[in-house]
This record gives sequence, C-alpha cells and structure tokens, in this order.
Amino acid sequence: MSLVDDLDFGKDGLLPVAVTDHTSDRLLVLCFLNPAALGKTVETGIVHVFRRSKGVVVAKGISSGHVQKVREIRVNCDLNSLEVRVDQEVAACAHGYYSCYYRKWNSDDNRWDEIDARVFDPEEVYN
Amino acid sequence: MSLVDDLDFGKDGLLPVAVTDHTSDRLLVLCFLNPAALGKTVETGIVHVFRRSKGVVVAKGISSGHVQKVREIRVNCDLNSLEVRVDQEVAACAHGYYSCYYRKWNSDDNRWDEIDARVFDPEEVYN
Repeated sequence: MSLVDDLDFGKDGLLPVAVTDHTSDRLLVLCFLNPAALGKTVETGIVHVFRRSKGVVVAKGISSGHVQKVREIRVNCDLNSLEVRVDQEVAACAHGYYSCYYRKWNSDDNRWDEIDARVFDPEEVYN
Repeated sequence: MSLVDDLDFGKDGLLPVAVTDHTSDRLLVLCFLNPAALGKTVETGIVHVFRRSKGVVVAKGISSGHVQKVREIRVNCDLNSLEVRVDQEVAACAHGYYSCYYRKWNSDDNRWDEIDARVFDPEEVYN
C-alpha cells in the first residue's frame, strides 16, 4: 500500500489538505491536491500543488523560495483529507503573512481585523 | 456587510472550514459549510454543519454532546475558506479521538500509526 493509494480523492479527484506548522501547530493554508501533486509531495518532501490554469504540478512557493518542507503527514478518520505538517520557509501567504489566516472577524464592527504583522513585501518578492 | 455575505462559497455552494482548538492551535476537523450552516454557526456560537443526506443544518456533535463553541473566526487571503477556532467539548472525532487527525504516515512500514489515545468509546456514546 502507498499513501496515495490509500486515500479517497472524491468525485473531483481532489483531496483537501490543511498545511500546518509542525512546531507551533498553527494552520498555514488549505489547498486541494490531486494524486500527482500528493505523489510529488511525498517523493520530494516539499509540498506540491496542481495549478489548474497551467495543468502542471509545481512546488508551492517555488517562485518566491517560500517552500514548505514536509515533517509529518496525518490523515483523518474517513481517509478523505490530510494534515501536512511542515517547516515553512519565510511565510505561507503570497500577501506577505506567515499564515493565510491573518484576519479575524470583528462582530462589533462587522469587518475583518488583521491580527498578524506582514513578514515580507509581496511587491519586492514577486516583481 | 455580514460575514457570510463577504465569502466566496465556490461553484458547489460549500466553503471549506478548518476547525482548530483555540487554546492549542491544533487542527481538529475539516468540514464544508453552506451559507445556512455558517449563518447558524455565527448566530448561535456553536459550529453547525449541513447534513446532505438529511438536507438539514445541525450542530456538529449534537448527538454526543461533543459540540464546538466558537471563539474566533479567521479568513484566508482569498476569502474562500475559514479557520473556525473553538473550545471543543470532549473530542471532535466520532471515532473517539480528540482530533480527526490521530494517525500519521509511517513511511518505513507503509502504514498509518496512531499517535493519540482514545478519549471515549464510540460504542458507549452512540449506542
């Protein structure tokens, strides 16, 4: 049995994956992996995703160098989603934050409030 | 603006939601919420899900009493997924574990190894 063969990818062929920080447990990003992307993730030890627009499997964060090194892979009870625990280079979010979940709902003012500071400037990194 | 109106529920009308422990940051479960379930979650402060088989919105864990009390709601950069941070009653997984992610991949032996102890016996709770 291989890890990829053991999972239920669902009707659309995509598996929901929560990427978390192996040291802090913090949620970094949610993404959807096809079997090829998961296979490449396991093989290389770097999180890979499937870019639908280009039809290719690429390492997440490869253009910025902000890759995610796999430390541990956990599975849920129904074998239809994963928690991939990583060491994150620099930051996970292309908007410059460590986690994509850098805003929380403020129900007094009905708006999202930023709770994290920016780690990098996206204009400098991506231009 | 309301929280529900501000989100992109995608083509299938479902939003991926990672439920995490507000104290420890640990990932508990991934689920998919429609606007009605998210509205009820915000209104009551208890995580609600949409049961497709029955076509109803119900509080997650209501049959066992293992409900999830919302402490904070965070959104990702693309406004198309949430991290709902909760206080978990007893345990999140119907198999008896605190988190649904209670097994990790063992690449030496090609199998899933349990990393958590059971918190409750499902046969006692659900029968």
